[in-house]
Amino acid sequence: MASDRHQARRSRLISAVKKAQLDLLIVSHPPNVTYLTGFTGDASCLLIGPKKTVMVSDSRFETQLADECPGLSVEIRTAKTQSADFLAAILKKSGFSRIGFESAYTTVTTRDDLAEKTAGVTLTPAAGLVEELRQVKDSEEIAAIRSAIFLAERGYAVLRSLLLPEMTEREAAHELEHAMRRFGALRAAFEPIIGVGPQSALPHYRAGLRQLGEAPFVLIDWGAVEPGGYHSDLTRVIATSKIPPKLDKLHRVVMNARQAALDAIRPGVACQQVDAAARKVIEDAGFGKYFGHGLGHGIGLEIHESSRFSPLSKDVLQPGMVLTVEPGIYLPGFGGVRLEDDILVTRDGYEVMSSVPLEL
Amino acid sequence: MASDRHQARRSRLISAVKKAQLDLLIVSHPPNVTYLTGFTGDASCLLIGPKKTVMVSDSRFETQLADECPGLSVEIRTAKTQSADFLAAILKKSGFSRIGFESAYTTVTTRDDLAEKTAGVTLTPAAGLVEELRQVKDSEEIAAIRSAIFLAERGYAVLRSLLLPEMTEREAAHELEHAMRRFGALRAAFEPIIGVGPQSALPHYRAGLRQLGEAPFVLIDWGAVEPGGYHSDLTRVIATSKIPPKLDKLHRVVMNARQAALDAIRPGVACQQVDAAARKVIEDAGFGKYFGHGLGHGIGLEIHESSRFSPLSKDVLQPGMVLTVEPGIYLPGFGGVRLEDDILVTRDGYEVMSSVPLEL
Repeated sequence: MASDRHQARRSRLISAVKKAQLDLLIVSHPPNVTYLTGFTGDASCLLIGPKKTVMVSDSRFETQLADECPGLSVEIRTAKTQSADFLAAILKKSGFSRIGFESAYTTVTTRDDLAEKTAGVTLTPAAGLVEELRQVKDSEEIAAIRSAIFLAERGYAVLRSLLLPEMTEREAAHELEHAMRRFGALRAAFEPIIGVGPQSALPHYRAGLRQLGEAPFVLIDWGAVEPGGYHSDLTRVIATSKIPPKLDKLHRVVMNARQAALDAIRPGVACQQVDAAARKVIEDAGFGKYFGHGLGHGIGLEIHESSRFSPLSKDVLQPGMVLTVEPGIYLPGFGGVRLEDDILVTRDGYEVMSSVPLEL
Repeated sequence: MASDRHQARRSRLISAVKKAQLDLLIVSHPPNVTYLTGFTGDASCLLIGPKKTVMVSDSRFETQLADECPGLSVEIRTAKTQSADFLAAILKKSGFSRIGFESAYTTVTTRDDLAEKTAGVTLTPAAGLVEELRQVKDSEEIAAIRSAIFLAERGYAVLRSLLLPEMTEREAAHELEHAMRRFGALRAAFEPIIGVGPQSALPHYRAGLRQLGEAPFVLIDWGAVEPGGYHSDLTRVIATSKIPPKLDKLHRVVMNARQAALDAIRPGVACQQVDAAARKVIEDAGFGKYFGHGLGHGIGLEIHESSRFSPLSKDVLQPGMVLTVEPGIYLPGFGGVRLEDDILVTRDGYEVMSSVPLEL
């Protein structure tokens, strides 16, 4: 059952490999390997093409491969052979000459070493072939993302119930991760960003040593990884005492920007256009220069994956894509408001998958 | 004060850059950047050479750079310029032609993109220059590793006090991380490996769904990251009910192997020789084929860094190196024993920095 789904993904990739005029692609980026095979270990790569598909791994993973990838051919290296030598021998034995590698995830050292050991073979940089397939999620992936959102929301509810003025941002981040894990998350999707007051204006702040009681509001950006490896990503701002009027103003503008983005989402629409719809609301309210990042990004086996909502994006929406929508306004020295939800593109529009209240 | 230390490290690197006949080295691996500057953010690189040293970053990190790296020249990119274009413009303006890059951490896509944008400049693969400096720790680094060990040991004591037969490996891993964080750790040094009974024979097992009560012993391999980013790495085996005689046997052999390794450690000794000393004890006891990994690895800003104790290692011990010593024996189907400690090489021998009891 699981292997049928992976088989179907591999068939689609094989078409792309053919189209790229390659005999074989070396898939080495772990989330791409997981996507194509169900294997959750690391240090292994999948060789895939029209005439041959084989997983190259080592003896540590032999049992796990048999469990997770029934029916997949495997080549198992023992401790006596170095991994580059082992891979090179398999490539040379295959007799293929046009071999692609994932250039966006392969270091120059690794490539040079492999090239030296495979004289006669042409190693061709190939980027994005698996990532493109991963943009559109199937029903099991959508269910997994729903589960990751559920875990994040349950953890957030626990954190809210635990908040105290003397709790530091970092303590809050740790309580949040611990709560998500208690419900079954593997881990937090990333180190939660928890910024009190002015710190909320720094989009890449990490939870530090400020106490929640030091300002009347706190921004929380967090997510969970469910057991299959899928991610969620959410942001809310909580008012911890009387709401400052300026904060309320920002919140209303961001709410409107969010709605404008959602109204634009349906299959066939350019991602650029969705970004522009939200950006216009923020610009019209006079805060254009305080929204310095793209509107959102794909989520799945990674926390940031293609496609993107941004002014430079060339992606077009298709049913089954799951992206964040996260407009924000950041006023240096005062603070920021960002509202982030996870959105599924449906056949005739969108579904907001997350359900945490949006109010301050 | 802090910046003096970083300045001294940069001076040593500049000598190595000169020796490699480079005008400038692009340091992009984040732990290397942190080591040379104290900067704890990411997405930034240090350009360093005899005639120029400058940090290339973007506006998100401007305040943080001023705080963490006083006195360091910086070039700050705004959102209008792409990062490769920005770096290329700085490199071309510098007028230097022989520019090295960290080939072990630079992807082929990144290198090709930069090469295209810097016609006339020779980009030379350079690997290991900063890593070699990082092998020998200074007094502040040693103090940081001591602190990371302390955090790991405090967390372990909490975990031991919480153990219950129905607790799963994964729950135990999460309790352990939460406890280390409560004492001030940033995070676990890696996902703790917690393997009940036969699972302890899989050196790369991750904590799963087995319950502690399912077998009479459990292996725990864990560590902490202290606030400055330094790591600890420890392993112990806990007997949770009557000690099986076979386990006791393995434990005694591993204890002897550990002592043989320690007895061999002093400045000037080849790392290979230390590995061989431990390996001989395990081989003589008839378990040679069940010790499939190297004896240890350097720790510091990364959980695995040079140097290595292994049969292939070419490193030679120097005072100030900090490495793990972790002999193990793994019997498939039964279980494994590994004892791992963090060792400082001193002027006349070694110091075991960790202090968790070794008994089962």
